[in-house]
Amino acid sequence: MPALEYRLIKKEKHTGARLGEIKTPHGVIETPIFMPVGTLATVKSLSPEELKAMNAQIILSNTYHLWLRPGDDIVKEAGGLHQFMNWDRPILTDSGGFQVFSLSDSRKLTEEGAHFKSHLDGRKLFLSPEKAIEIENNLGADIIMSLDECPDFNHDYDYVKHSIDRTTRWAERGLKAHQRPDDQALFGILQGAGYKDLRLQHAKDMISLDFPGYSIGGLSVGESKDEMYQVLDYLTPVMPEHKPRYLMGVGSPDALIEGVIRGVDMFDCVLATRIARNGTCMTSQGRLVVKNAPYQRDFNPIDPNCSCYTCQNFSRAYVRHLFKADETFGLRLTSIHNLHFLLDLMAQVRQAIRDDNLLDFKEEFFEAYGLNTKNPKNF
Amino acid sequence: MPALEYRLIKKEKHTGARLGEIKTPHGVIETPIFMPVGTLATVKSLSPEELKAMNAQIILSNTYHLWLRPGDDIVKEAGGLHQFMNWDRPILTDSGGFQVFSLSDSRKLTEEGAHFKSHLDGRKLFLSPEKAIEIENNLGADIIMSLDECPDFNHDYDYVKHSIDRTTRWAERGLKAHQRPDDQALFGILQGAGYKDLRLQHAKDMISLDFPGYSIGGLSVGESKDEMYQVLDYLTPVMPEHKPRYLMGVGSPDALIEGVIRGVDMFDCVLATRIARNGTCMTSQGRLVVKNAPYQRDFNPIDPNCSCYTCQNFSRAYVRHLFKADETFGLRLTSIHNLHFLLDLMAQVRQAIRDDNLLDFKEEFFEAYGLNTKNPKNF
Repeated sequence: MPALEYRLIKKEKHTGARLGEIKTPHGVIETPIFMPVGTLATVKSLSPEELKAMNAQIILSNTYHLWLRPGDDIVKEAGGLHQFMNWDRPILTDSGGFQVFSLSDSRKLTEEGAHFKSHLDGRKLFLSPEKAIEIENNLGADIIMSLDECPDFNHDYDYVKHSIDRTTRWAERGLKAHQRPDDQALFGILQGAGYKDLRLQHAKDMISLDFPGYSIGGLSVGESKDEMYQVLDYLTPVMPEHKPRYLMGVGSPDALIEGVIRGVDMFDCVLATRIARNGTCMTSQGRLVVKNAPYQRDFNPIDPNCSCYTCQNFSRAYVRHLFKADETFGLRLTSIHNLHFLLDLMAQVRQAIRDDNLLDFKEEFFEAYGLNTKNPKNF
Repeated sequence: MPALEYRLIKKEKHTGARLGEIKTPHGVIETPIFMPVGTLATVKSLSPEELKAMNAQIILSNTYHLWLRPGDDIVKEAGGLHQFMNWDRPILTDSGGFQVFSLSDSRKLTEEGAHFKSHLDGRKLFLSPEKAIEIENNLGADIIMSLDECPDFNHDYDYVKHSIDRTTRWAERGLKAHQRPDDQALFGILQGAGYKDLRLQHAKDMISLDFPGYSIGGLSVGESKDEMYQVLDYLTPVMPEHKPRYLMGVGSPDALIEGVIRGVDMFDCVLATRIARNGTCMTSQGRLVVKNAPYQRDFNPIDPNCSCYTCQNFSRAYVRHLFKADETFGLRLTSIHNLHFLLDLMAQVRQAIRDDNLLDFKEEFFEAYGLNTKNPKNF
């Protein structure tokens, strides 16, 4: 039996959106889905029970970070990542490639892999496609990624052309190295920067390798949202219909909706939790910076339309006080709220697909959130 | 009806320990009791539900800190401290006196009160006995304290003699200023530093004012534990039998047990949560610094004999990883564990009083915890 089964339940009538479900060894995920990020085997400040209470169905952890701390050998000894962090629902791990390129020092790419220095202590490390899979096999996530290079959206054409071919070769090596195909589904990552022909070429090459699912990489890394949507517009139609599609690192409310409209099934992003720790909340009326002065005596919940633990129990004035006093319970409360907001948004999106009214839903949501549907702000 | 009713249920046969209960507007507290400290209207990093899950029956908040941030006026507007922080069980607030003496700058004491500068922004403030009560009336805790001066244990005799008389006059003024005697029980604080005659004199003077309960102040501020126990030895016997006795700022496991043996009913201390945030855990076998290297691959719970959320769900290796990676979920887990440890210890102490075997319990506990009953370490 394969580690993953994707079932396409329904296509939305007026867009490319799909309703589906993904069966994994740790349970079934409804798609389209947003995945909270637990970089270091913890979704910052939150307990597994809090994540379940907001109906988080799958979380993401970072291979690069766990390799460095505590070490994938320790996670393996603990019985794998699920047991180590006490999370019994599905987990996805990335390949580590993006972090090598964005965090590490003195990196040098060869055909073999990436030589670089740890961003923590400067020690020299080497990440090959085989090593990435070995680490991910040790971590034991339900869905894992093959090592990729992630060139900038505007990197020069010849470099990107060379890079996607290497990423394809790395993907083949990853497939061969994979020791647990029966309980870990290995996805291939589609690259190609901002070049349509390279994107389509790389998609074709990777699809021929018959991965159980595909990730779209190299987006949300500095290009405009319109540029990102244009890539999705031509890329998702050539992706296999009966396999899940995962847009990596995207998680603003508008981009989630636009991604779903273009046929994406899975998303992850640190945005919601990162801005939460800074006192900024996503609400049904747009962003609210709860630590600001206007909320000093505001005893309403962060979002009066929200059913999350924070909004059911605490006021803006209290959360503001916690932030002003540097009390960590504050960022816990805003993290709960923001993740609940995105998970709830995706539940509404799934309902809109069932009801074939996703475009109406989008218009209403953008209006309430203060977004112009013609000209979405980057946020 | 008075705000507080104390019921003495039973005296232990071989010691001065008492089993009792305190009825407050927000519920009944079993004594002897340990009170977790929520300085700024939050027990650092924990939710009210987590405190209830460990059977916290009453928590303490600090008048001085809440006066400065967010301001007692805001807490009052929120509907009081219980509503502001969503804690529907009893709360106790201190007088602010101790913080004025230990935290603030440029303090100057007069008969009227204490002039000082805020430790946050240097602004000039004045705390009188009436102002302390006004703030505490605004906060609305079930048990409140009258303003006291807290001289050092070894401060010179003549100064302390003068100081206790002023604290008595401040207590009288506090009683007069108290606007909510029907739902807030005002305790008097007994001072007198290390001088037996002054301690006994001040107790007599304060007891004549007929407070519904008495706090023992000026201990656990630098003197040895033996010196503290000597004060309790002569002080608690002269305190009213049918009123609660609260030893302020004491909360190491050994001092809790020794205090109970000498007839104390209530305790509070930041020790458990402060060391928790530093990665140090109290366990049935003594202290364990979970962030240390030996626990890197130790997949046992922090304390195999513990029933707390942390020990039921996570390993030493995981908690250590969280500390090494500066993840706040780590200090949340150790805070839960340490508070559970002290609350559970007090539940065991209450059972030992019921069973008239508190001295045996003490000996066993000290032995397991690595304490010499003849010569307890300061920790």
